[in-house]
Amino acid sequence: SRSINLAVIPGDGIGQEVVAEGLKVLSAVLPQDVKLETEEYDFGAQRYHATGETLTDADLDDLKKHDAILLGAIGDPSVPSGVLERGFLLKLRFAFDHHVNLRPSKLLPGVATPLAGQPEIDFVVVREGTEGPYTGNGGTIRKGTPHEVATEVSVNTAYGVERVVRDAFARAQARPRKKLTLVHKNNVLTFAGHLWTNIFNKVAEEYPEVTTEYIHVDAATIYLVTQPERFDVIVTDNLFGDIITDLAAAVSGGIGVAASGNINPSGEFPSMFEPVHGSAPDIAGQGKADPTATVLSVALLLRHLGHESEATRIEDAVSADLADRVGKPARSTSEIGDALAVRVAD
Amino acid sequence: SRSINLAVIPGDGIGQEVVAEGLKVLSAVLPQDVKLETEEYDFGAQRYHATGETLTDADLDDLKKHDAILLGAIGDPSVPSGVLERGFLLKLRFAFDHHVNLRPSKLLPGVATPLAGQPEIDFVVVREGTEGPYTGNGGTIRKGTPHEVATEVSVNTAYGVERVVRDAFARAQARPRKKLTLVHKNNVLTFAGHLWTNIFNKVAEEYPEVTTEYIHVDAATIYLVTQPERFDVIVTDNLFGDIITDLAAAVSGGIGVAASGNINPSGEFPSMFEPVHGSAPDIAGQGKADPTATVLSVALLLRHLGHESEATRIEDAVSADLADRVGKPARSTSEIGDALAVRVAD
Ligand SMILES: CC(C)[C@H](C(=O)O)[C@@H](O)C(=O)O
Ligand SMILES: CC(C)[C@H](C(=O)O)[C@@H](O)C(=O)O
Repeated sequence: SRSINLAVIPGDGIGQEVVAEGLKVLSAVLPQDVKLETEEYDFGAQRYHATGETLTDADLDDLKKHDAILLGAIGDPSVPSGVLERGFLLKLRFAFDHHVNLRPSKLLPGVATPLAGQPEIDFVVVREGTEGPYTGNGGTIRKGTPHEVATEVSVNTAYGVERVVRDAFARAQARPRKKLTLVHKNNVLTFAGHLWTNIFNKVAEEYPEVTTEYIHVDAATIYLVTQPERFDVIVTDNLFGDIITDLAAAVSGGIGVAASGNINPSGEFPSMFEPVHGSAPDIAGQGKADPTATVLSVALLLRHLGHESEATRIEDAVSADLADRVGKPARSTSEIGDALAVRVAD
Repeated sequence: SRSINLAVIPGDGIGQEVVAEGLKVLSAVLPQDVKLETEEYDFGAQRYHATGETLTDADLDDLKKHDAILLGAIGDPSVPSGVLERGFLLKLRFAFDHHVNLRPSKLLPGVATPLAGQPEIDFVVVREGTEGPYTGNGGTIRKGTPHEVATEVSVNTAYGVERVVRDAFARAQARPRKKLTLVHKNNVLTFAGHLWTNIFNKVAEEYPEVTTEYIHVDAATIYLVTQPERFDVIVTDNLFGDIITDLAAAVSGGIGVAASGNINPSGEFPSMFEPVHGSAPDIAGQGKADPTATVLSVALLLRHLGHESEATRIEDAVSADLADRVGKPARSTSEIGDALAVRVAD
């Protein structure tokens, strides 16, 4: 489409700084004839302290009107753990049915990795985004007593698993290596594990060209550091996806460059794009945050909206910028944003 | 005590080979006056195929009579995923109340790690062993239909959490750095997360010398590869412990050297010691498996039974053997066992 109507949620901490750079690069990459409209929303810790609200029904109605959402980061030590995560981030992912949580990992030339020998890393994790242990099911009895019992219920449905597995197979089919790995813990979590494994095997029959494998989540963390090149596309549950994508980010350049999309493939609700990192209150306001993860999230956003060539331009600019960093002094958040804006406009 | 009455469960695949070496080293390290009695049990895939049994009440009564259990590995591709894991391994851990699952990680000199720059790694994970998502609570409705729903219930009790947290604080207090990290996901799994966090903070008051920190499980995987030296003792839930200890093993020399103890601290039931690795059917019977993880598990077993100096002798022998490997051709399972037996007897 020739216009983009974007909801922008800078959020807390470094969220503010990195989103500014994301928007800078977005403006620079868009052709003249694509009209960019942005509306900023003040969700996060400040609004919570001022009003007690995290995300109201009215907010959801407002957000719904946009083509997509760009999010910086939400979370602050002044708010009890879980309040903003459950009350905003997860609420939004669930309300907008963001069931495909897309997290690519690519180790770009020149980028530092904690792994020895600079392995080849180029895979994408398709993390389920609306089920599993993230549903908030469960509860507590006898809270605060020696007899307290707290439960967490992982909810998994054939409907929810099949749609994300199908999405992952389609992505694997479209990639040169055509390989899909299911990551779960089906030898212990046998109820959910059998559901995932059966659906995975059933859908696999429709994709004879896709090579499939199954790996337990614990073993997957080993392979991510000993042979990350073995992965092409990974599909996994919400919690396992949360865990392995942080590890994947760490080995492929760090969370400073890890992008993600919370995607509603049907388009019924706007999809949301955000860096994998959090609000990093310890370095907030100092111009130290790397905006690259947000800029790469903007690329995912553009691709989702059909602006493929602009998405690629951003990714190429980031590759070049990262290769260029080697041996140079660190730059500020806005210096990196400026450099990327110049590159994409070239 | 001057006698050890050991139950030995070689199990499947390489379990047979590595347990033989573990026993070899155990015999070699024990002083003349300590009487070692062993009884071998045939649990695993073969017995399951022959009898349909994994672990009966009579088996549990038999095992109960021993001072400790040495396990190789259980699991075979010929048995559906979950049958032996739930029916034997987890059943035993639960029946014998092995609530402290102890998994030390130490990167020894000369040992290869996938991490660049040979970081200092020396920490121990205290994984809860009888609760969390491992209880088998949950179920499936409408199995095999498009309307299937599968749940997994993580069960967490103040009783269960407090005892393992106390164990971890005591271990941290006894180590030079006196640092304890709680790993959980309390911003999403808020019911269980609050229980863990509150008990952790409460017990911390009794250990003013222990430095404490909290880290989300996803972030913990990052630190395990970017700054593993930050960890001293980690306490965590059953599933998170499963995941991060495989990663911990990978960065500190591989699962070829990762030992573990499933401990019942009260001594009401025998504790069980096992390598973290599985039965590795792909290399079984070829003399390729590294028995070091089993030998180190024997050291944990000896320490648990009060044979501290013998435990240390084994650990020193392993350190020396590993340092000695650098640049030399690979040895067979029994060659490594022989070399360790010679060293501990010195
Ligand atoms: C902040 C938290 C709720 C979130 C998650 O667990 O999904 C984050 O870790 C992520 O990966 O986006
Ligand atoms: C085999 C499996 C049941 C087991 C677990 O998940 O605990 C294993 O991975 C381990 O870590 O000992």
